[in-house]
Amino acid sequence: MAESWATLGVDLHLEPTGSGGLRRGLTDALRDAVRTGRLAPGTRLPSSRSLATDLGIARNTVAEAYADLVAEGWLTARQGSGTRVTDHAVVPPAAATRHHREPARPAHSLIPGTPDLAAFPRTEWLKAARRALATAPFHALDYGDPRGRPELRTALAGYLARARGVRAAPETVVITAGFSQALRILGTVLRARGVRTVAVESYGLAPHRALLRDAGLATPSLPYDELGTDPRPLTTEGAVLLTPAHQFPMGMPLHPDRRSAVVNWARRTGGLILEDDYDGEFRYDRQPVGALQGLDPDRVVYLGTASKSLAPGLRLGWMVLPPSLAEEAAAAKGGVDTVGALEQLTLAEFLTSGAYDRHVRSSRLRYRRRRDALAASVTARAPEVTVTGIAAGLHAVLRLPPGLEQSVIQAAAWQGLALHGLSVYRHPEAVAEQMDALVVGYATPPDSAWAGALEALCRVLP
Amino acid sequence: MAESWATLGVDLHLEPTGSGGLRRGLTDALRDAVRTGRLAPGTRLPSSRSLATDLGIARNTVAEAYADLVAEGWLTARQGSGTRVTDHAVVPPAAATRHHREPARPAHSLIPGTPDLAAFPRTEWLKAARRALATAPFHALDYGDPRGRPELRTALAGYLARARGVRAAPETVVITAGFSQALRILGTVLRARGVRTVAVESYGLAPHRALLRDAGLATPSLPYDELGTDPRPLTTEGAVLLTPAHQFPMGMPLHPDRRSAVVNWARRTGGLILEDDYDGEFRYDRQPVGALQGLDPDRVVYLGTASKSLAPGLRLGWMVLPPSLAEEAAAAKGGVDTVGALEQLTLAEFLTSGAYDRHVRSSRLRYRRRRDALAASVTARAPEVTVTGIAAGLHAVLRLPPGLEQSVIQAAAWQGLALHGLSVYRHPEAVAEQMDALVVGYATPPDSAWAGALEALCRVLP
Repeated sequence: MAESWATLGVDLHLEPTGSGGLRRGLTDALRDAVRTGRLAPGTRLPSSRSLATDLGIARNTVAEAYADLVAEGWLTARQGSGTRVTDHAVVPPAAATRHHREPARPAHSLIPGTPDLAAFPRTEWLKAARRALATAPFHALDYGDPRGRPELRTALAGYLARARGVRAAPETVVITAGFSQALRILGTVLRARGVRTVAVESYGLAPHRALLRDAGLATPSLPYDELGTDPRPLTTEGAVLLTPAHQFPMGMPLHPDRRSAVVNWARRTGGLILEDDYDGEFRYDRQPVGALQGLDPDRVVYLGTASKSLAPGLRLGWMVLPPSLAEEAAAAKGGVDTVGALEQLTLAEFLTSGAYDRHVRSSRLRYRRRRDALAASVTARAPEVTVTGIAAGLHAVLRLPPGLEQSVIQAAAWQGLALHGLSVYRHPEAVAEQMDALVVGYATPPDSAWAGALEALCRVLP
Repeated sequence: MAESWATLGVDLHLEPTGSGGLRRGLTDALRDAVRTGRLAPGTRLPSSRSLATDLGIARNTVAEAYADLVAEGWLTARQGSGTRVTDHAVVPPAAATRHHREPARPAHSLIPGTPDLAAFPRTEWLKAARRALATAPFHALDYGDPRGRPELRTALAGYLARARGVRAAPETVVITAGFSQALRILGTVLRARGVRTVAVESYGLAPHRALLRDAGLATPSLPYDELGTDPRPLTTEGAVLLTPAHQFPMGMPLHPDRRSAVVNWARRTGGLILEDDYDGEFRYDRQPVGALQGLDPDRVVYLGTASKSLAPGLRLGWMVLPPSLAEEAAAAKGGVDTVGALEQLTLAEFLTSGAYDRHVRSSRLRYRRRRDALAASVTARAPEVTVTGIAAGLHAVLRLPPGLEQSVIQAAAWQGLALHGLSVYRHPEAVAEQMDALVVGYATPPDSAWAGALEALCRVLP
């Protein structure tokens, strides 16, 4: 393992389209790793042949990168002892550096939750930014309405009605710095209204539960069975957090009977449904599942985000709220807007120009192809593994034979493949049958790394 | 007054450079006001002659705009009863609209706190965005380090050291959505550390005090005398919020003896100084006052923002923290970054390319000219008024004869000029001599409206 690239912990980004190509990318990554101390003085590097194999690039490229760094004094090459990091090459940049290394990135990641960031539509986004800046009135650059820019709220109200069946007026839309800020705001608002409990699903994201708990709310779990999340046991909880269009991470929509059941519960008790529609745009084989919000806009808060359709780094999310809640949410967001006006105006232009639809369509095609390749490869090479939850979204659930989840993830880590098991997403008090599975985010790698990631995955499956 | 434009409450932006010119701008503003209900059905509009005089534009332009809107059915013109908003012209866009009107904007504003937004360097900003997008690695678009993008933290550490004498390493910089988020984070961190009291100045911003109180902190005031804020009574308070380079709003720097005194207090008691350096870039006549943080980076949190140097709508601020606090602040910001990555990368590029320095230099020149015009006009036309606090910053304090503050502000409002009196900024328990004054934000209007705003101000001065 001393020779394996993945164990070096180097933050390596080899983008074939990057300026300077692979050699430059590799040289920069290695230099950076030495400079920041991630490659300690004296560390022996893998042979150029072994590294080239690991990375799937030509041996010459690696040898040239090594030679560059030897010439620059970062590495030392000596007959018989291979290539090593020069002793004393590291100049610690500042006192606090050791506390703050960027985490090492594995060679491949299939962790769900991120779209293919290499496919971010940079040119189109910049075009939209140019148009937005050219037409924005100057006061758009002032401290803004805490609900967000009216241009974006109007564009979203139209888009969400058309694409997701959401009943929205611009006045009931609140723009947020991603889903997290939205949930944080809702936690504050609900707590101020006297709510003490927000029911959540047996499977979901621990950071979301933590956000609610930070606001002083209890987060008991709803049962999960073969039909999915069961909201019928809801009684006096003040609210429930659900992923109705595409359960995260299990992948099925909320059963039609249970859609009605939860809306009826909300009407009967005055409860509120928080609808997390994180990837509602991505559907492949089946009829679109409209937003639950369309059934009762007075009892459902719709939550959406650009994090899956565009990129999490934009930090753009949105809520559509019952009118009575919209003002409370705006107040809880603080006296002024907290989200950059130019990014909001750019997204508004991106939506109204049709660029958003075009990007979603092309992403859907790309991810569908990956999903098909994933399903075909797993079926062919790992017959004991069942691929589920693939009708929609950016991830699949791979059911494993009992007891294998942890060992598969460990084996993947050794290969430099980051994977999440289903247990990561299981509520500590989940009312659900225990199962072993992987949650595979097939949208995560860039196109250039997808085949490698899939191959690495297949190698570690039972 | 029924004929005065200012009382119509129409959100009017007449930008001579806008596409379509004045007629189009006026037509759009009026149509929008009718559509959103700010001009109610049946409202009688001012005569075209009177409106033209109010706006300082040709009567024909107004008459043509009225004619356009009559043709479109928004207005009705009838001999003898003037021009009115058509009955039933308004289609209420949604139920909640009436709760959410954009606040009406006065004809002129000299409210401090905003730079000239019409001078925002749109072309240069877009260039920086293009370069930032062209070179950003794709993972820069992922969920990010809660401290913010390393590119921006590095650029700021360099800039602040050079321009403000701040001792910063990128690892101790935390990017925030403006000053407000920074103060909110600090409130949380201080409270978690057991701090119960943050002393503030006798003059300052009430929303800042409110942010601290929301975090559970008391905000008693420090005395203010002829030498400015006096930090010497500080004892067991855990922290103090100050504007050392340029007291807001009074306008002088913290006296040298008191700079030492407050740093000594912090060292002696383990207290923390929160240094609000909101407009440190803007100095005119005197030696630059370096950041207090340079005296003791372990006891001072430096807070800066792009809101005065560029625009508040960017929602970009920063803190430089003692290393021990940087991690706590990052944790309090939440598990991921809350500020858009592209805006951060753009500002980093803007700083490193020198565009930021160029913009600050040209702004300084523009604001200095305005300040000189303000001082000259007031001295010439209102000899009873003293102009103070003008060595730096984007606002001046105009001392009035006793008892006149409220009546001057009222007279200004009647003229469509928005003004703030000093009393707005006075701590409810301020230990300071009572005085009547105006806080005049001379940077606020666009260049095209500056002369009009100054004239309106001079008309209402005693």
